[in-house]
Amino acid sequence: MNIIVPATSANLGPGFDVLGLSLKLYNKVEITRQKITSISIKGEGCNNIYLKKNNTFVKIFNEIYLELTGKTDNFKFNFLNNIPLSRGLGSSSSVIIGAIASAYEMAGFKVKKETILNKALTYENHPDNIAPAVFGGFTVSIIDDFKVYTQKAQLSDKIQAIVVIPNKPMSTNKSRAKLPKHYTAKDSVLNVAYSSFLTSCFIKQDYDNLKITAKDKFHEDIRMKNLPELFDVKKLAYENGSLMSTLSGSGSSFLNIAYKEDSINLQEKLRSKFKDFRVEIIDFDNIGFKILTKS
Amino acid sequence: MNIIVPATSANLGPGFDVLGLSLKLYNKVEITRQKITSISIKGEGCNNIYLKKNNTFVKIFNEIYLELTGKTDNFKFNFLNNIPLSRGLGSSSSVIIGAIASAYEMAGFKVKKETILNKALTYENHPDNIAPAVFGGFTVSIIDDFKVYTQKAQLSDKIQAIVVIPNKPMSTNKSRAKLPKHYTAKDSVLNVAYSSFLTSCFIKQDYDNLKITAKDKFHEDIRMKNLPELFDVKKLAYENGSLMSTLSGSGSSFLNIAYKEDSINLQEKLRSKFKDFRVEIIDFDNIGFKILTKS
Repeated sequence: MNIIVPATSANLGPGFDVLGLSLKLYNKVEITRQKITSISIKGEGCNNIYLKKNNTFVKIFNEIYLELTGKTDNFKFNFLNNIPLSRGLGSSSSVIIGAIASAYEMAGFKVKKETILNKALTYENHPDNIAPAVFGGFTVSIIDDFKVYTQKAQLSDKIQAIVVIPNKPMSTNKSRAKLPKHYTAKDSVLNVAYSSFLTSCFIKQDYDNLKITAKDKFHEDIRMKNLPELFDVKKLAYENGSLMSTLSGSGSSFLNIAYKEDSINLQEKLRSKFKDFRVEIIDFDNIGFKILTKS
Repeated sequence: MNIIVPATSANLGPGFDVLGLSLKLYNKVEITRQKITSISIKGEGCNNIYLKKNNTFVKIFNEIYLELTGKTDNFKFNFLNNIPLSRGLGSSSSVIIGAIASAYEMAGFKVKKETILNKALTYENHPDNIAPAVFGGFTVSIIDDFKVYTQKAQLSDKIQAIVVIPNKPMSTNKSRAKLPKHYTAKDSVLNVAYSSFLTSCFIKQDYDNLKITAKDKFHEDIRMKNLPELFDVKKLAYENGSLMSTLSGSGSSFLNIAYKEDSINLQEKLRSKFKDFRVEIIDFDNIGFKILTKS
């Protein structure tokens, strides 16, 4: 079988742990039955020995496969990783979703998106990356009584992501530990307002109003201080047609959204100023993970 | 001229100071030019001498009229008040919006909804009631650089409000003063999630999912403790077909939303248990204030 799982960008400014969207940048995994388990990795992480010896995808795949079939079988896993690691682009969620969906498929079970999403909660207790990796598009997610509820909206093909990928990773767990334990009532109410309004803009495809509402009081500035150039990225992006510019997940990548006709100019402006950073134009994905060829 | 302005219900649980909706329950005002200013009040507040001597509508109307025309003229104001006072149903916002819109009309200016909304910020710095009073429907509002931005969604005629109106008022200002100055990060993130998801449910008219997301960590329980019967109202409503049940504004009214076919049963259940409270079925308004006959 072959599966692709998209990169995702979570938070989108005010929607901390809630909002996310999906990008046409995919990790691809090919899985075939074999007498001995083997792993090959191409792309991101191909030189990382740890990823081969202690592979999270394989670990989760085996757990779920055992749970579903009661058996331990051997497989050949060929990874083609396009999602940068530890850059806030949902590589972990891609691994979790890919592993669970593949295990269902290889075990001969029906691969239902709702099932895969809820199973993923065992491995990731924030729904903001796993939901768009499953459904694609723009997503709003809440967890209620150990179940994920997601509302999805299509992302228009009039807009594109211009993603700035720094040369340094950021650890989500370390980054999360530095955040405040309390917020002022004023800041809390502002984030509620911004996130609700942003949700409405995405659902109604009213992208002109994104800029006034893609603001955050909870995490973004604190995290961006780890890589202060990102403040300059944001400023330059807004001066050059960005509709919204926010830290992607817990960083280090930075998500800019622009109308298609403004993307190349924005990319060039960012590239010429931030020579150490990758700057990529990426279309939005509206589908989520997809099994390309069956087992 | 004649103007009607709808009652409104703000917060809707998690959307503190942000979300609101509009009800087909209107204050009506008739204004005619006259040699001496006179006021007559029918309906809510008709026996309140203070409302005649120090009428907020007339005060705001005169201020705006003077600002627009440079003149002080005399008018006869006939008020027909259907919105209960100090019950969390937007009577203050109705007065503010009605007064400003009427002053524009009587001064011979074009009555643009956006203008009226932004003018209202002088008198009310939270947009959650004024926005639905202006536009009708479900509204999400933010203030940016002293300007109100509102996104609106139509409310389906498949649903109705079943409003419980207690016999005691609650003061918004007193109620607000009792609220915490800080929230935990966990509660803040929950309200962001609930409010964003609720926004999506209303825009997509996915009313079946309202219940899981109409939850609040900021103000509702604290305020409801002033009138603990409201906890029983909520419980009974959810047991009898309510799609969502939240304190209306800062109270004391309580908003329940149900499908039309469940409204009468819910009303009867609530009436038979809470004999001291009014329980009214009210349709949703999708228009906002409306000038019925011109000056």
